[in-house]
Amino acid sequence: MPVDRTRILLDTIKRLLRRGAAIHLHKIVNKTHAADLAVVFRFLTLYEQETLFDLVHTVEHKAMLFSELEEEILVKLIEDMPAEKIAEILAQMPSDDVADLLGKLSDDRAKALLDLMTKEESEELEELLRYDEQTAGGIMLPDFIALKEETTARETIEALQKEYIDVEMPFYLYVVDDHGRLVGVISLRQLVVVPPETRLKSIMATDVVSVHTNTDQEEVARIVARYNVLAVPVVDESSKLVGIVTVDDVIDIIREEATEDFLKMAGAGEGLVESQSVFKSTRIRLPWLLASWFGGVIAFLIIGHFERGLKNFVYLTAFIPIIMGMGGNIGTQSSTIVVRGLATGQLNLKQIWEVMFKELAIGFLLGFFYGLLIGFIAHVRYDPWSGVTVGLAVISSMTIAAMVGSLVPMVFARINVDPAVATGPFVTTSIDILSVFFYFQIATVLLHL
Amino acid sequence: MPVDRTRILLDTIKRLLRRGAAIHLHKIVNKTHAADLAVVFRFLTLYEQETLFDLVHTVEHKAMLFSELEEEILVKLIEDMPAEKIAEILAQMPSDDVADLLGKLSDDRAKALLDLMTKEESEELEELLRYDEQTAGGIMLPDFIALKEETTARETIEALQKEYIDVEMPFYLYVVDDHGRLVGVISLRQLVVVPPETRLKSIMATDVVSVHTNTDQEEVARIVARYNVLAVPVVDESSKLVGIVTVDDVIDIIREEATEDFLKMAGAGEGLVESQSVFKSTRIRLPWLLASWFGGVIAFLIIGHFERGLKNFVYLTAFIPIIMGMGGNIGTQSSTIVVRGLATGQLNLKQIWEVMFKELAIGFLLGFFYGLLIGFIAHVRYDPWSGVTVGLAVISSMTIAAMVGSLVPMVFARINVDPAVATGPFVTTSIDILSVFFYFQIATVLLHL
Repeated sequence: MPVDRTRILLDTIKRLLRRGAAIHLHKIVNKTHAADLAVVFRFLTLYEQETLFDLVHTVEHKAMLFSELEEEILVKLIEDMPAEKIAEILAQMPSDDVADLLGKLSDDRAKALLDLMTKEESEELEELLRYDEQTAGGIMLPDFIALKEETTARETIEALQKEYIDVEMPFYLYVVDDHGRLVGVISLRQLVVVPPETRLKSIMATDVVSVHTNTDQEEVARIVARYNVLAVPVVDESSKLVGIVTVDDVIDIIREEATEDFLKMAGAGEGLVESQSVFKSTRIRLPWLLASWFGGVIAFLIIGHFERGLKNFVYLTAFIPIIMGMGGNIGTQSSTIVVRGLATGQLNLKQIWEVMFKELAIGFLLGFFYGLLIGFIAHVRYDPWSGVTVGLAVISSMTIAAMVGSLVPMVFARINVDPAVATGPFVTTSIDILSVFFYFQIATVLLHL
Repeated sequence: MPVDRTRILLDTIKRLLRRGAAIHLHKIVNKTHAADLAVVFRFLTLYEQETLFDLVHTVEHKAMLFSELEEEILVKLIEDMPAEKIAEILAQMPSDDVADLLGKLSDDRAKALLDLMTKEESEELEELLRYDEQTAGGIMLPDFIALKEETTARETIEALQKEYIDVEMPFYLYVVDDHGRLVGVISLRQLVVVPPETRLKSIMATDVVSVHTNTDQEEVARIVARYNVLAVPVVDESSKLVGIVTVDDVIDIIREEATEDFLKMAGAGEGLVESQSVFKSTRIRLPWLLASWFGGVIAFLIIGHFERGLKNFVYLTAFIPIIMGMGGNIGTQSSTIVVRGLATGQLNLKQIWEVMFKELAIGFLLGFFYGLLIGFIAHVRYDPWSGVTVGLAVISSMTIAAMVGSLVPMVFARINVDPAVATGPFVTTSIDILSVFFYFQIATVLLHL
């Protein structure tokens, strides 16, 4: 549903809720896709959410809505719901979504829900809950189709009609040996076009791209994106096939990781949760600003050091904003390019010197251009030596900033610190300090500040 | 292939290229996935690329490599290749990839290649080239499976084995009426589990999510992500089914759009192309810095205006970096949250006032905290009124910055200007100016500057 149609749906539902028009609401709710309802839920109060949820007719639709709702909303929604009712809905959901939800609940609540499930279900879930949430094991679906090499195409189709009727994404069929180890893959598409007596062995592809249960989810996403597959099989330490990660989950990961990087670089937390309270947001954003505060204090000390001399050169202080601003902005350009390049794999740590020298050259060229421009103003407004001082300060600030901005994220990546987190505060702070420092050093030499 | 294995592959290939070990290279190249080769190509010279490419054995492998290579690399690689050889490879590629490539070539070259294709192929491509590259029409595959309502499951499977053997992603089968208009969809999975004589009409889903040829690719990506589908059908003005957009292309779009937004916000161009020359990069990054230059000049004029008074208050200038820095950083936090929220659909323009007031509150709280901290330093080092002045300046700078940072992207989105492009320069520049302005205004009132 396009964005404006979602907005119309939201307006309609809100109006009907205000009017208490249960019959109309019932009709709309039950013919709306769970993904669209989930968007609408974001803009409703808890009470309105509960009203709407009770109108959802089938337990399957409820299960789909559970899968689509944002975690924070879902956790609040089920807070007062009886465990039996929740368990009934969970039974209809894909196990990876159930595991995610259980991981967010208190241990007692999660245990109560697990107790209400069949033994098979609860064991499967406990298995999933063992893995780190950010790894292939934590995001995989434990339902997949695994067959033996000797199985024929006809038998496979029969199995699809009986045993595997509940498998969510049956587009790949995996072939395993007697120990459950992954040996091949064929697509459903191949299966329907071969003669019924063909054995899987003779049509399967054996160079299967797979991931381990402990592979990081970002790496899983990169693999799915690189090889254009709809699902990637997950194997454990003994190469046993234990699950699959499907492309729809990969899409969510790619979006979340990009959002995370955006926010980390700006020092604004890791998750974009608009339902966070003012105080929680304040607390998340405070520490990053501390780095910038620290840089500011050092800049203050540097300028303070020249306080006496500055009495005769007060006009020089008017150039502080432009020198710092130009440095800060070109530094942000450089670090953004590098952080994003590393995240998408378009930049490689092998290129560290190449990238740094290139950025250095760009910083110098842009510094030269803007240095001339600003130096000229200082020359006209004050005197030639002031012009030279300001111009050189801009050149040095921009050159250093481009170098620092590109080098810092690569160094952090090299020592396995997330470049998105570390780059923002570190780069901004050091550029602030370096810009001011070089400005006053140059002024001391040229103007005898 | 995990990142470190790609690195090993690259090192091996480079070593073999240096040694001219053609036989070894031939073996490695032909057993490596085209997606991995494409990564390796990024780090090779044109000459090395050509050497490697000539070693690729089958035309199918060459076609896959063409599809995977970055456009810039591919365009250079085929520059000196005979048209006949290229056409032979293009014939094996999905039409959407061919259309993308032709769109990047000179008109003459593209025409020469089209002339070498079959009439059917070239007509299909000319059709695709009509659409804007960034729309559903520009990214769709014109190969899909379309059947009539009366067709049986058995007939469908027969059709899959004959007519549709070349369709790239046959996981959904679309049902059309006599005019080719989309009326339903069934998945390949459903098809294999129903009795052979079942008519599509009785098993198809009729609430098909579809997009128009002119739907923006970002919207297409949002729809695929929201409804967890593997492909979305594309219809023209007369509701006729003309193509499908598959999930693997959607993944690329989501990544590219995120990269684009990152770079736009930092004013560093739109595409992360590390192969760009220093001069080209400089040219792309220059204009954005102009906005910041402009802001710096205004800040200069403001401070210059107080030059005479500042002689007695030189120490006040030492606080300029910290006041500007704190404002700039909190403004970046706010605008990043809003820009990303709008891009992912987690924020809605309806929430404009709610978000702004929340940011205002956060800005005030953080401003209060850091204002106290910095004001205290000024109080101890100089005098109480300087402390109050600096403290109030930090509070006003941070509050205004949070407000401007959140409001500006939403206003831009409202008037249909890409918030990612406009926000960066606009927000930074206005915060620089406002911070300095309020600082000196407060100093004038409290300290009689």
